[in-house]
Amino acid sequence: MIGPAKNSVPATNPTKKLLLSPDSIINLDHGDPTMFEPYWRKLGEKCTVEISGSDLMSYCSDIGNICWFLEPQLSDAIKRLHRTVGNAVSEDRYVVVGTGSTQLYQAALFALTSPGGAEADPISVVCAAPYYSSYQEETDFLRSGLYKWAGDAYSFDKDGPYIEIVTSPNNPDGAILEAVVNRKEGKLIHDLAYYWPQYTPITHPADYDIMLFTFSKSTGHAGSRIGWALVNDKVVARKMTKFIEVSSTGVSKESQLRAAKILGVAIEGCQHSDSENFFKYGQCLMAERWEKLRDVVKNSQIFSLPKYPQEWCNFISKYSESHPAFAWLKCKEDTNCESLLRAHKILTRGGERFGVGQEYARISLLSRERDFNQFLERLSGIKTAGQGIRTT
Amino acid sequence: MIGPAKNSVPATNPTKKLLLSPDSIINLDHGDPTMFEPYWRKLGEKCTVEISGSDLMSYCSDIGNICWFLEPQLSDAIKRLHRTVGNAVSEDRYVVVGTGSTQLYQAALFALTSPGGAEADPISVVCAAPYYSSYQEETDFLRSGLYKWAGDAYSFDKDGPYIEIVTSPNNPDGAILEAVVNRKEGKLIHDLAYYWPQYTPITHPADYDIMLFTFSKSTGHAGSRIGWALVNDKVVARKMTKFIEVSSTGVSKESQLRAAKILGVAIEGCQHSDSENFFKYGQCLMAERWEKLRDVVKNSQIFSLPKYPQEWCNFISKYSESHPAFAWLKCKEDTNCESLLRAHKILTRGGERFGVGQEYARISLLSRERDFNQFLERLSGIKTAGQGIRTT
Repeated sequence: MIGPAKNSVPATNPTKKLLLSPDSIINLDHGDPTMFEPYWRKLGEKCTVEISGSDLMSYCSDIGNICWFLEPQLSDAIKRLHRTVGNAVSEDRYVVVGTGSTQLYQAALFALTSPGGAEADPISVVCAAPYYSSYQEETDFLRSGLYKWAGDAYSFDKDGPYIEIVTSPNNPDGAILEAVVNRKEGKLIHDLAYYWPQYTPITHPADYDIMLFTFSKSTGHAGSRIGWALVNDKVVARKMTKFIEVSSTGVSKESQLRAAKILGVAIEGCQHSDSENFFKYGQCLMAERWEKLRDVVKNSQIFSLPKYPQEWCNFISKYSESHPAFAWLKCKEDTNCESLLRAHKILTRGGERFGVGQEYARISLLSRERDFNQFLERLSGIKTAGQGIRTT
Repeated sequence: MIGPAKNSVPATNPTKKLLLSPDSIINLDHGDPTMFEPYWRKLGEKCTVEISGSDLMSYCSDIGNICWFLEPQLSDAIKRLHRTVGNAVSEDRYVVVGTGSTQLYQAALFALTSPGGAEADPISVVCAAPYYSSYQEETDFLRSGLYKWAGDAYSFDKDGPYIEIVTSPNNPDGAILEAVVNRKEGKLIHDLAYYWPQYTPITHPADYDIMLFTFSKSTGHAGSRIGWALVNDKVVARKMTKFIEVSSTGVSKESQLRAAKILGVAIEGCQHSDSENFFKYGQCLMAERWEKLRDVVKNSQIFSLPKYPQEWCNFISKYSESHPAFAWLKCKEDTNCESLLRAHKILTRGGERFGVGQEYARISLLSRERDFNQFLERLSGIKTAGQGIRTT
């Protein structure tokens, strides 16, 4: 669902300070984390990587490691980062690097279902609705005989083996979730892309069999396509590595090198005062955006937002509530929320894509500031559900 | 088949001038193109890229392009390179970038078979034997309902739609190939990874519907995982882009940026004298290695190599023969060539992996010089097929 949208604001050229005209389309459909650019720009040279023409030419990074294409310095940085932030147990875990967590999700499905039997049915893959809109497509697009999307975990009643994806904080709605099916034939994949201090209180180090994280959401470097899995079981780590070997013969070494550098700077920043600490900076920025958004929604007759409980965050040493990367906006019943917003030239993703009703829409809050402010301005101008759109 | 091999020579740390002991394993199983490192090292700063912490953060590169995650400067460099080398028609073609040509091969299968029908059989995928050993695994590992490996194109006799992969020059044997099935229900994917002057005479600009190339083999930058497809049909380009979107949400921007830079330097080098011209330098180097190898094989009682015809190469403006990236070594009948070499601590890939007999083995000629020389030394010492191994 990323891709061309006519007349939309260019996502590239961040330095061009285009003024948004009232006719400009604001694309908040995908969670492009460009809001974090100013932080990294401010750090200047400190995060710069230099790569010479003869560097990183081999397929191999670490032939003694199960994940033979993982740069050792990235593996080290990942483990240190989790220790510093306290969001996941990383000691004695296998690290598998992927081309974004997108690829690792598929690697995990493969690892948990292969080799399968020639006559066996594909294993069911479920997730509690509302679930991340891309899981279904990523699971089913090749019509694999190994696994098959089976929808909402709450209504799953088939016997036998299954895989449940637990996304926490949840995409789209930011909720903190646990597995819901809980049967012994089940295997779990924990997608923890948003379990970082800027989005939610860090209440404990997560400790699950397969945990997925991504550079895109941790520090905002989506263009690098770096994700990582922390994996308990050696056989699973080996099969996930095999998947990435067969599907792309490894993962960009340039991106791995740069991710190692930037994660290193982020770790170092955690020793410093608030504005130098990326995660505290991010937490303040997200809290500010949510405050502004809640102000607009409070004055609206037709929109509402989820409430999040206050929790103690070990990282910022304060009680705080979640400030998710997406707003999960609900319209008055029977209003198609996505269509309503589209009529105001705001592109979002409707609830049906997440397995729930059209009264919901997911809106990225990670855009550049100009787009976020323009979004608020337009949102505050929507007074009735009938403004220029079809309702059902 | 890349990955850990006990006691093998580390592929990393090129600067460590380890001496090879007679007990060291020489891994020539995969085509890791490290032989080109000295060329790029010599160029120094000229190829260095510098990437700051706030660069390349967005998922998007060019939202107006079908391949929305393709950096425009890479697209430009690719088209200029093909014009300069004269190996493929790139004007008026869609460029789709992938995480290596590995991912693009799968993207092409998807593009040519999706959406498929719920009841339809998977479409047969064939390739003339000996064929690249990974095609079968890449085609079948997810047990897709869209496509299915059907083996050697020469013995394919099933009616209905099919896909034929044409690899030219061929991997493993370096032969120049054309499609062999030639029925109107067929669709073709041309894998032209090795159609570069260092490996084979450039006799004409290739002009096919889907042509795959890779940074790994063109300039030797395998670690970057950059491949590209030149595609005639808009719908196919769109579906290939869709595949890469769903499987990895795009392709590393760091790698794309660096590939654009290095291809640019290679293009510029083509205006200069021989030693500055990467492709002429590579052509000389490969010719030299082949000459040494043929000398050893000529004196052997048990090994033989394919012969290649002299052809006019438009790029070097000379008659020349092919100097493939792999030696396709044949042992006297009934000798298992891979086992024989393994007994001498040379890791290669046996003929059965390529759909032919065990008397063949594929040997990478792209290793660092030290390994190549040690390989020749050991090969020249093998006098009989029975030296320390099982024969059938």
